[in-house]
Amino acid sequence: MNSNIGVVGLSVMGMNLALNMADNGYRVSIFNRTISVVDKVMEENFHKNFTSTYSLKEFVKSLEKPRRIFLMVKSGKPVDMLIEQLIDIVEEGDIIIDGGNSFYKDTIRRTNYLKEKNINFLGVGISGGEEGARFGPAIMPGGTEEAYKYVKDIFEDISAKAYGESCCKYISEDGSGHYVKMVHNGIEYADMQLISEAYAILKNIGGLNNHEIQKVFEDWNKSELESYLIEITANIFKVKEDDGTYLLDNIMDKASQKGTGKWTNLEAIDLGVDISVISAALNARFMSNLKDERTKAENIIFKNTVGNNQDLNINLNMDRKELIKLVKNSLYISKIVSYAQGFKLLKAAEKEYSWNLNFSEIAKIFRGGCIIRAKFLNDISDAFVAESDVDNLILTKFFSNEINTGLEDLRRLLSITVQQGVPVSAMSSALGYIDTYRTSRSSANLIQAQRDYFGAHTFERLDREGSFHYEWIENNEK
Amino acid sequence: MNSNIGVVGLSVMGMNLALNMADNGYRVSIFNRTISVVDKVMEENFHKNFTSTYSLKEFVKSLEKPRRIFLMVKSGKPVDMLIEQLIDIVEEGDIIIDGGNSFYKDTIRRTNYLKEKNINFLGVGISGGEEGARFGPAIMPGGTEEAYKYVKDIFEDISAKAYGESCCKYISEDGSGHYVKMVHNGIEYADMQLISEAYAILKNIGGLNNHEIQKVFEDWNKSELESYLIEITANIFKVKEDDGTYLLDNIMDKASQKGTGKWTNLEAIDLGVDISVISAALNARFMSNLKDERTKAENIIFKNTVGNNQDLNINLNMDRKELIKLVKNSLYISKIVSYAQGFKLLKAAEKEYSWNLNFSEIAKIFRGGCIIRAKFLNDISDAFVAESDVDNLILTKFFSNEINTGLEDLRRLLSITVQQGVPVSAMSSALGYIDTYRTSRSSANLIQAQRDYFGAHTFERLDREGSFHYEWIENNEK
Repeated sequence: MNSNIGVVGLSVMGMNLALNMADNGYRVSIFNRTISVVDKVMEENFHKNFTSTYSLKEFVKSLEKPRRIFLMVKSGKPVDMLIEQLIDIVEEGDIIIDGGNSFYKDTIRRTNYLKEKNINFLGVGISGGEEGARFGPAIMPGGTEEAYKYVKDIFEDISAKAYGESCCKYISEDGSGHYVKMVHNGIEYADMQLISEAYAILKNIGGLNNHEIQKVFEDWNKSELESYLIEITANIFKVKEDDGTYLLDNIMDKASQKGTGKWTNLEAIDLGVDISVISAALNARFMSNLKDERTKAENIIFKNTVGNNQDLNINLNMDRKELIKLVKNSLYISKIVSYAQGFKLLKAAEKEYSWNLNFSEIAKIFRGGCIIRAKFLNDISDAFVAESDVDNLILTKFFSNEINTGLEDLRRLLSITVQQGVPVSAMSSALGYIDTYRTSRSSANLIQAQRDYFGAHTFERLDREGSFHYEWIENNEK
Repeated sequence: MNSNIGVVGLSVMGMNLALNMADNGYRVSIFNRTISVVDKVMEENFHKNFTSTYSLKEFVKSLEKPRRIFLMVKSGKPVDMLIEQLIDIVEEGDIIIDGGNSFYKDTIRRTNYLKEKNINFLGVGISGGEEGARFGPAIMPGGTEEAYKYVKDIFEDISAKAYGESCCKYISEDGSGHYVKMVHNGIEYADMQLISEAYAILKNIGGLNNHEIQKVFEDWNKSELESYLIEITANIFKVKEDDGTYLLDNIMDKASQKGTGKWTNLEAIDLGVDISVISAALNARFMSNLKDERTKAENIIFKNTVGNNQDLNINLNMDRKELIKLVKNSLYISKIVSYAQGFKLLKAAEKEYSWNLNFSEIAKIFRGGCIIRAKFLNDISDAFVAESDVDNLILTKFFSNEINTGLEDLRRLLSITVQQGVPVSAMSSALGYIDTYRTSRSSANLIQAQRDYFGAHTFERLDREGSFHYEWIENNEK
């Protein structure tokens, strides 16, 4: 009996996805370029629904039609090479699926290339790491709806479930699935940075010890902040080493990254979308790696003019409970803004690449299986149902109300952090974004005046339509 | 008698550069693809040192050897096409110069391509717009030093002069000249944004009218802030329309851009350099164009929890003079940071592309002819002479002292702006950068712990070398 689906590429992610499918009752053919890996999988992770194959031809032949071929190989060249080999073996109507971390523009290119040959192509964002792949990831499939219907059942079965729904929803054409995954990763950066800023404030301004901070995060995980990242943060603050010190205190403050956060930021610049909270998170990682420079700088640049790094003589005038409340509300509002920026980027991408995105459904995908899963994604999903055409998540009734309720706390907190010299660039970017967005008359008129002054770039007027230029220099010399 | 140099491309920039060269006593051959333009220039902007030519062959033949061929055509394909045509006509040792706004990676590619054919190529950043081209631009030449010596005299003669020196200094190999020009443009964005934020504070918090703001900028132009952009800003605030209103007040607050600011930000992400002040300036332009959304948002999101956009009940507790001082020092410090970020990007590029950059000399170029010309570039140049290997401009003796002196004012100002809801993202990014940089022990340890928790990405430790992983989940379930 032919297999229902085949998986090419048996690194941990590919193997776990294959096991996940097999567990769900699907017959899965497996293949790997280095064929010894196939044997190793059959030995160490045998599943009765697996069919091992030892050549791409044998692999393809072992699949029922239309064939579902799931590629889990390194993104970039390996995907293209594999596609080239498959073209000669598969038949019209077969479906090639790229489940790797591919760049969405590659996915668009591959879709068009294979369309010419009447081969279907799906670009699928998969989030949740090894654990997710094995027991239920968040899945973001892009491609034609016709092709998607052949894999829908399998994808929904193997995906994570949240609130009774599968965390797999069809996104839109070609590169849209990988695009949504990319934005997910950008939001993940922001989430993590915001939590680390909350930690810095509690520790360095509030003077809380690790045990107290642990309790705070545990508390917050029972609130609107409930999420996987808050949960694991609370757990991290529990871990002690043999000598009784907290492991966290011994970990180097250099945060690495694997590139996908960069993509999101590059794309936002290309499309002209402000995702400042996400950018702040990326910059914080860059800066974290300058450990030696930061150590030098601490002895050269001082918190205040007195010439030392002691606290400014300001009176916090609040107890810890009050400070914790400010941090909580600030974290929540900043988190809202980072998601709003992510969805704003998706909105721009939808227009740019002629996709048809359902933001409410996308929010639902994120509710399970992936790193940014959080209770408040239900609110996001609901808000986008109620106001599907809204320009910005922060303008929806629910979230504008949340922001209006907590904004003064964010203002109060940041007026403390700027004076205390505790860097919270992501939170600060969130407030900057809100205030920029709610300022109907900005000072950008001066920038346009300058541009027209030195470069005759012209300007628009408030009082009438058209493009205008003023002879600033001549007038000035009068 | 053959011409000393030839200019291809007679749009305003090309024509003005040709006139500039001719004024400086050089014999200049001119050519344009649409040859009627050549006649038009000879008619309307005749110069006795011009030689008009009507084919590329005639043009090349009219030049003394080694030939100096200055391209002033649209960047991108037109440059490549012209180079292809020239290859068959020029001889080994001739020098092709691209004076357009080319992307530095194109310049690197073209350099290597022409090197194979023993043709010299210079990529030259030129700043100063039409006026600068005509009477003295800032010039940033990249390419081999051997080729540069053939154009050095001409370039120095036509360039702007500042403090007795020409604003043209050899940069380094291949794309370095265009790269420096790109970073210049990024800094220009930041400069303009910072000034517009100062304006917003003076107007919306200080309550100053245009006449008073004009005086403030005029004053500042006699201080360490002395610069072209402050000067023209002071002039802009003078201009009234026939009805007595200020022109500035009638200009739409939508700031456009032409792309080069984007390049700088894309490049910073690629190289992993935090240029947050420059990014904030770019984002501010993006946001400025959402005029309709901003107008809507103003009625949905409020400055404070009271549910309106009235001032919070905070007591500024300072007179205008004091506020103006805070704004001035904040503008100055933020400006220092934006330049520091620009030079930090150059330092990363130097390493990435194997250039050899002299930051002191680069600062000198910027002192005249270009938009960011400013008195304090002398201080930057001096600081880099005194400490040429410094990691960051803000760590130099002079600038760390300037920052230490004014930093408390920046803190005080931002604690006001965050409460008053006046968005000053660029200034705020400057403080965030300083505080991030002067924090030797950051909270990035938590980010690494999270990454190791959900993705087994490992972490370094403070107390010993190596790469470590902890079984967070297993431990947690104990």
